[in-house]
Amino acid sequence: MAALTRITHKAHLPFPATTAATGRSKPRAARIRMSLQENGPSLAVVGVTGAVGQEFLSVLSDRDFPYRSIKMLASKRSAGKRMTFEDREYVVEELKADSFEGVDIALFSAGGSISKEFGPIAAEKGTIVVDNSSAFRMVEGVPLVIPEVNPEAMEGIRLGTGKGALLANPNCSTIICLMAATPLHRRAKVVRMVVSTYQAASGAGAAAMEELELQTREVLEGKPPTCKIFGQQYAFNLFSHNAPVLSNGYNEEEMKLVKETRKIWNDSNVKVTATCIRVPVMRAHAESVNLQFENPLDEEAAKDILKNAPGVVVIDDRAANHFPTPLEVSNKDDVAVGRIRRDVSQDGNYGLDIFVCGDQIRKGAALNAVQIAEMLL
Amino acid sequence: MAALTRITHKAHLPFPATTAATGRSKPRAARIRMSLQENGPSLAVVGVTGAVGQEFLSVLSDRDFPYRSIKMLASKRSAGKRMTFEDREYVVEELKADSFEGVDIALFSAGGSISKEFGPIAAEKGTIVVDNSSAFRMVEGVPLVIPEVNPEAMEGIRLGTGKGALLANPNCSTIICLMAATPLHRRAKVVRMVVSTYQAASGAGAAAMEELELQTREVLEGKPPTCKIFGQQYAFNLFSHNAPVLSNGYNEEEMKLVKETRKIWNDSNVKVTATCIRVPVMRAHAESVNLQFENPLDEEAAKDILKNAPGVVVIDDRAANHFPTPLEVSNKDDVAVGRIRRDVSQDGNYGLDIFVCGDQIRKGAALNAVQIAEMLL
Repeated sequence: MAALTRITHKAHLPFPATTAATGRSKPRAARIRMSLQENGPSLAVVGVTGAVGQEFLSVLSDRDFPYRSIKMLASKRSAGKRMTFEDREYVVEELKADSFEGVDIALFSAGGSISKEFGPIAAEKGTIVVDNSSAFRMVEGVPLVIPEVNPEAMEGIRLGTGKGALLANPNCSTIICLMAATPLHRRAKVVRMVVSTYQAASGAGAAAMEELELQTREVLEGKPPTCKIFGQQYAFNLFSHNAPVLSNGYNEEEMKLVKETRKIWNDSNVKVTATCIRVPVMRAHAESVNLQFENPLDEEAAKDILKNAPGVVVIDDRAANHFPTPLEVSNKDDVAVGRIRRDVSQDGNYGLDIFVCGDQIRKGAALNAVQIAEMLL
Repeated sequence: MAALTRITHKAHLPFPATTAATGRSKPRAARIRMSLQENGPSLAVVGVTGAVGQEFLSVLSDRDFPYRSIKMLASKRSAGKRMTFEDREYVVEELKADSFEGVDIALFSAGGSISKEFGPIAAEKGTIVVDNSSAFRMVEGVPLVIPEVNPEAMEGIRLGTGKGALLANPNCSTIICLMAATPLHRRAKVVRMVVSTYQAASGAGAAAMEELELQTREVLEGKPPTCKIFGQQYAFNLFSHNAPVLSNGYNEEEMKLVKETRKIWNDSNVKVTATCIRVPVMRAHAESVNLQFENPLDEEAAKDILKNAPGVVVIDDRAANHFPTPLEVSNKDDVAVGRIRRDVSQDGNYGLDIFVCGDQIRKGAALNAVQIAEMLL
């Protein structure tokens, strides 16, 4: 369990730099030596100019992910752009059907339609695709993986076999929720979960983060807010998640939580409901999660379980009223859990309420995908 | 049911003026003629310089509340300030034990300790106190009233009898939640309710609203945020409600929802759990409410019930992804409900998810108190 310390206000700027820029302690030379290796896999990052694409690079670098080469792929519009990564110069290439020749692992985050078109092409050519879109998540046979939760789903998928594959990264809300709920589920079996989310701008991409900042400036200056991304005021407001609403009245974001939980836990009976809301926060999601268990689990045992869970940090200081906040987990790897308490609306120790925060771009997307790739090594 | 129309961005400024200043259509002269009446009750507003105190005046004026005199009461610090109300000049008086001589109705919003000290003194002198603090809410014999929900609780309390009384205004989150939940409860009996709140700055007073605005400016300028009210960054962040945390791990705000619901519904068996979170929104709360019923209730029937509920407006346009937002209900009387859908985590039609927004200062405080006072007339 990594320590999660309070970060200073400088890291709290509304549009923070990527993690790599926030200054890790590891010396740069050492990092390069460790990650650029002749016998490492060849990588490709698809959608490299986006918020998650950029975070892929930060996470690869932070974690000394070994690679012998890396292709920076994006749409035609971004092709030709120059970028520096680990002190080397790269030119962004246009994503094409032949982009994946000799690529071992491709990290995709360029939207569902790009994934649907190019993911199978890459896999066909022997590339193992880790896809951050929703394109393949619910496709049978495509593992949907949170490495701390269901690594067994990846069984049989390895590098060096010449066989490509599709691997899906779950939706950000699902990852953040299940990082905390799974250790409890393993002990006491969750039978029902009621989730309400507080989702950051970053889930809608870098442009949404920029618009939230722009709108906030405009509103503070008494100007009408620019509403290009969501069609309504986001500054000092919140609204039901912008995903399309389905015929059952749930939006797609909510049904991802319902369906992905079942697939990841390999439990078609677990009951989940969710209400997904966007709040004017930059890059970390929060979730209020109410849990019903099959077996009793008291709050002290739950705290102990969570304190020992990998990738989870407990922030639960009742006396100081200090609990997880989106700002505190921004640019952090760990998902923070707090407000751990026996649910007074349920009998005995069969229910708990918890509050979870996680960086949407990092554990909610890029970090989890890189962790999946690490399991291939 | 009043119409709730989209308001322009001008009304969406982070620190909006009180409702009276937003311009109602009724001519000013007519309003004065109607509300200042020789045979109306004499009023006092305690805490008149606060956010809710100011809103009491706006609401009294907007609703043509009849009065023959009105005393503006506040702490010593504010005494002597001049203010204009309905074109007459007033001087704020210091709240003292003898302030209530001849006062028929006193609206209190000056914090629990002031209420505890002066509420009983006023009631002793024959004043009917409508108290917005938590001081008397759970005291047996003190009616806790939402006029649309449990008017019967006020039975026997009338003006003109010479007998004073204490009447309690529920907490803002409870009022907003129960405005939507009660009509459904009446039809299908709610047995359990899981609430997650998205609470505005206004609940912590005008100073908190000002600090949210100040902090936001500071963060946008790259300065460290001023953290006097909550001790942490509020701009572009959210956090567990600042109310003290009790030994059961719930904070006081959450337990208000649990306990007040039981008292208002006169149902000691109803099970409620709540997670209360502050979000960087100015003056309207949102709540995600999951309901479990004793009797079946489908979503179409629920929509019809809510469409016909007094003080409630349904905003539930799935195709346009248009649902209630805090901004849209700011400065409005009605509580808005949307996202009305069958809970997929419950069998049959025994569960619903809804999303509710209401102006915290208005229906969550001042309006509800004035409506209680109206029932005395």
